[in-house]
Amino acid sequence: MSLEMRQAITDDIPAIVRMLADDFLGRQREDTSLPLNEIYVKAFREIDADPNNELIVAELDGEIVGTLQLVITPSFSYKGSKRSMVESVRVDSKLRGQGIGRQMMLWAMERARERGCISMHLTSHGDREDAHRFYEKLGFAKSHVGMKLSLK
Amino acid sequence: MSLEMRQAITDDIPAIVRMLADDFLGRQREDTSLPLNEIYVKAFREIDADPNNELIVAELDGEIVGTLQLVITPSFSYKGSKRSMVESVRVDSKLRGQGIGRQMMLWAMERARERGCISMHLTSHGDREDAHRFYEKLGFAKSHVGMKLSLK
Repeated sequence: MSLEMRQAITDDIPAIVRMLADDFLGRQREDTSLPLNEIYVKAFREIDADPNNELIVAELDGEIVGTLQLVITPSFSYKGSKRSMVESVRVDSKLRGQGIGRQMMLWAMERARERGCISMHLTSHGDREDAHRFYEKLGFAKSHVGMKLSLK
Repeated sequence: MSLEMRQAITDDIPAIVRMLADDFLGRQREDTSLPLNEIYVKAFREIDADPNNELIVAELDGEIVGTLQLVITPSFSYKGSKRSMVESVRVDSKLRGQGIGRQMMLWAMERARERGCISMHLTSHGDREDAHRFYEKLGFAKSHVGMKLSLK
């Protein structure tokens, strides 16, 4: 299986939104109506303009089969180290269990190392138990509490 | 008590490092030797150059008494919403329990709203039980698991 990982382009937006929505939490919060809501194009432009924020897709035989967002954060703690965060990690539901997510994460870890990061962080909803096991197999520790506040 | 919240400048770096180090986890990982390690100045410049990353200090009667870092993340999920993250939140240990941390966080929440964020996230080490209570009183929910991987 030859998976190509690359920066997303505007043509990838519908596939990314479809994968975000194809999820027990995501389906309640995304808008997959067509033509696609312009807010996703606006979000894409903002991510694309931010050099510390990379929207990534995984391509297999010309099809988009996965996505993740990698955020690089220069910070002060740990002697002025950079840290990284991944979010919105999704694999096409038809292709789960084939190691695509693992390949995507290994790529993201290498990319974060190249960008000078000493650690990778993520928060995963407490109900995503399968995801926690997936990340633990990659070496992530459940060392932190992830807290969230709505600002609306 | 009149607390002024503002963007950090280079003159604030020693006070910020001192507060990060004055902590049961931080003292193991920061370098407070003088003259100050140049890596902190380099980190400051990288944060300062990133428009989505704000290093904030709280000033009381001309003294730096607190710091936090606010990271704005344009993202795709939740219909292309921006989220925010706070990290490295510290109050001078001599001045804890006086509501300074709460004022700082309320300021950060308002700042994140101004920047268009719909939510604020943070991860806090599992051992920081006082911090978890502090954030819960501000309305944060322990809804997520915070996972971390070393890339070194």
